[in-house]
Amino acid sequence: MQSFEIDKTDLQRIKAALERDDAELETILQEYHASEIAIIFEKLPHEAKEKIISILPAQFASEVISEMDEEHHPEEILISLDPEKRSEIVEELDYDVATDIISQLDEEDQQEILEDLNEEDATHIRTLLTYDEDTAGGLMNTDVIKVNVCLNKKNALDEVIRQSEEMEEFYTIYAIDDEGTLQGIVSVKSIIKARADAKIKDLLVNEFVYVEAHVDQEEVARLISQYNLTSIPVVDADMKLLGRITVDDIIDVMEEENTEDILKISGVSEDEELAGSWQDAVKSRLPWLIVNLGTAFLAASVIRSFDDTAKKLPIVAAYIVIIASMGGNAATQALAVTVRRISLSDLSDRQAYVTVLKEFLVGMINGATNGVIVFAVAYFYDANPMLGLVMFLAMTGNLIIAGLTGATIPLILKRVGIDPAVASSIIITTFTDCIGFLLPLWLASKLLL
Amino acid sequence: MQSFEIDKTDLQRIKAALERDDAELETILQEYHASEIAIIFEKLPHEAKEKIISILPAQFASEVISEMDEEHHPEEILISLDPEKRSEIVEELDYDVATDIISQLDEEDQQEILEDLNEEDATHIRTLLTYDEDTAGGLMNTDVIKVNVCLNKKNALDEVIRQSEEMEEFYTIYAIDDEGTLQGIVSVKSIIKARADAKIKDLLVNEFVYVEAHVDQEEVARLISQYNLTSIPVVDADMKLLGRITVDDIIDVMEEENTEDILKISGVSEDEELAGSWQDAVKSRLPWLIVNLGTAFLAASVIRSFDDTAKKLPIVAAYIVIIASMGGNAATQALAVTVRRISLSDLSDRQAYVTVLKEFLVGMINGATNGVIVFAVAYFYDANPMLGLVMFLAMTGNLIIAGLTGATIPLILKRVGIDPAVASSIIITTFTDCIGFLLPLWLASKLLL
Repeated sequence: MQSFEIDKTDLQRIKAALERDDAELETILQEYHASEIAIIFEKLPHEAKEKIISILPAQFASEVISEMDEEHHPEEILISLDPEKRSEIVEELDYDVATDIISQLDEEDQQEILEDLNEEDATHIRTLLTYDEDTAGGLMNTDVIKVNVCLNKKNALDEVIRQSEEMEEFYTIYAIDDEGTLQGIVSVKSIIKARADAKIKDLLVNEFVYVEAHVDQEEVARLISQYNLTSIPVVDADMKLLGRITVDDIIDVMEEENTEDILKISGVSEDEELAGSWQDAVKSRLPWLIVNLGTAFLAASVIRSFDDTAKKLPIVAAYIVIIASMGGNAATQALAVTVRRISLSDLSDRQAYVTVLKEFLVGMINGATNGVIVFAVAYFYDANPMLGLVMFLAMTGNLIIAGLTGATIPLILKRVGIDPAVASSIIITTFTDCIGFLLPLWLASKLLL
Repeated sequence: MQSFEIDKTDLQRIKAALERDDAELETILQEYHASEIAIIFEKLPHEAKEKIISILPAQFASEVISEMDEEHHPEEILISLDPEKRSEIVEELDYDVATDIISQLDEEDQQEILEDLNEEDATHIRTLLTYDEDTAGGLMNTDVIKVNVCLNKKNALDEVIRQSEEMEEFYTIYAIDDEGTLQGIVSVKSIIKARADAKIKDLLVNEFVYVEAHVDQEEVARLISQYNLTSIPVVDADMKLLGRITVDDIIDVMEEENTEDILKISGVSEDEELAGSWQDAVKSRLPWLIVNLGTAFLAASVIRSFDDTAKKLPIVAAYIVIIASMGGNAATQALAVTVRRISLSDLSDRQAYVTVLKEFLVGMINGATNGVIVFAVAYFYDANPMLGLVMFLAMTGNLIIAGLTGATIPLILKRVGIDPAVASSIIITTFTDCIGFLLPLWLASKLLL
């Protein structure tokens, strides 16, 4: 199978049916998977989406809503639906999904939706709304299969089947005591295979990985990835079971975090939606560019302060842009490797030290190699060996500083608790620009004038 | 819980026990999860790892080996073990993991390991070794639970329990006919809940997502993410079931692909291991820097060809480095957003067109805004309104070109089948460097001289 791509025929058929009657539209829509309709939605105006959601059966409609990307605003469809239909759909949604969508609305709209829901669902969602979106609590689903440790095989199995009625998939069953404290986990397989008189407490795995609700989602992703889990229970400070996070939620978190890393390292605000409007893009990128403009004036002032050298030796200008450009790129390389390494695992002090030392060596060797080439050009093309020597020294020096900066700045930011990816290439390349101008101009003023 | 970090006490205890007796060492090691020992391994010399693996029970040893990162070379431990112990360990490994590890060895060592294995395991691994590492076939595990569609409830359940004996977790059960052709999938829940006389064929879900063995791992990741799957069956061209890929394997693929994206976009070869040696880093980065050196000479030649302007108006030099630096950064922003967007979903022609148009607008507005600031500096600080006008036009022009380049180049590369992330910032910023020099110098030569 191929991942789904919309072709024109799909769109035309659906658009034509939207104009005609609802029965035909419903028949056509049934041919698609809910996630495919969510993709088709990206091409349709708001009214069309609203109409499709209203005529689909609640169960199917809720799957479509679940599959919509946050940046295509499922909450806008929800709020414009007829209240009765809306409640039906929300009640079919997983609690964590419903909460994520409802949380995008303002207070008043949230209340309107919650008031129409049945009491149980409304309570679950109200609780989930209290957790920060980026924490384990914000990510978890409160709908878990839990059995009391005292149940025997038959009762436990009945209980599992009863509770799983509304779940598509169950990964793990959580065993709790009378107070709701998590005692351990138990697999369906071990219950099926157990002797008839076995109790849940005999089948428990007591050593298991869990998180508290306030833990950051990146940490949750790291745990799930490290221990190869399919789900992880979420507890409060007293080990009361609150919910669980499944691996498919974590896949979305990983995509989100990776997008943020790439954007931040490139000087784009992490909030920019990839498919957002040009207005949003300006808002997210202009501040960084203005910061860069300030630092670029700083770099340019280096050139101004060596006005004399530049006037006497205009050829130096052509060389310094090469030195500065190479420094910027070498720093970006060191930065990317270091930021990615930090985001996959924390580095110990010793590892951090080894990383910086490595970048020093790499900078020296890459700098000297490129320095020799620049020397050769100055020697053979410009017939100026002394200029060549200056540029060799400047290139080597600048690439060492680039390597050290690219590795050290994210490591320091991490130590002081700032996201290392904000050490974006904008900041670091501007730094190497300054050094890239200063070093050759200063050397030239000393050795060539 | 927190993700595991080694502290000095852990390491010291283990190192001390390594010197003393094996019984004590084994007791200490039992306190850790296999994935934790894999992390501790990163700090130990080869002999210590070999010793620990030899004294651990085969089952536990195989888990540790599974958890080791590829870049810490589990195959080196395996090949240096006593052959009997090695076979025990390899037989405990999942086939896909065993294959990945063995594939890192040379032909001769591979044969040595495979010859000592039992026939069944050796055959499974030999088959998997024929698939390319980055495809569905290279990723799948051949060890799946399959039941014949004609079985009734009781026999099917017995069969599932029998086959699941060696698996930790089973997600989905695959229903096949007598020829081994995949007919559908069935959940444990539906078997448990079925009437006693139900047959598997009555419980089947016939519509399901599958992949053929040659499909690229990125496509597999996209399917699993799009359809929220916990596993996906892998088939050959005749729909014969070959194996399955589980979501936890995909998490590793996603991390790998994301690392590659960040590295490539920053001009680092995708093969560079994050924790690799400085020699590897030089090998991976130097070629890109030399490419950049060539293009930087090109940019510098622009400055040389306007030698006259530079001599008469040395102040221009200080301004052009600002224009060039801003262009590089704006291009990096547009590039990051576009590359990330392409890697999350393919863009239709229309979406590509909208993206380019958006970057044009963003470039124009960000360019004009920064251009006004530069104009103000030229006007008030350098008292040269005409210079300000030149720099305003150059800034606006360069940022438009930067946006267009950053968006267009990855889109074109994608269309012609080249990985868009190789449109690294190195190439694109050098391009904007050239324009960043050319535009203000040319405008200055026309308007200021």
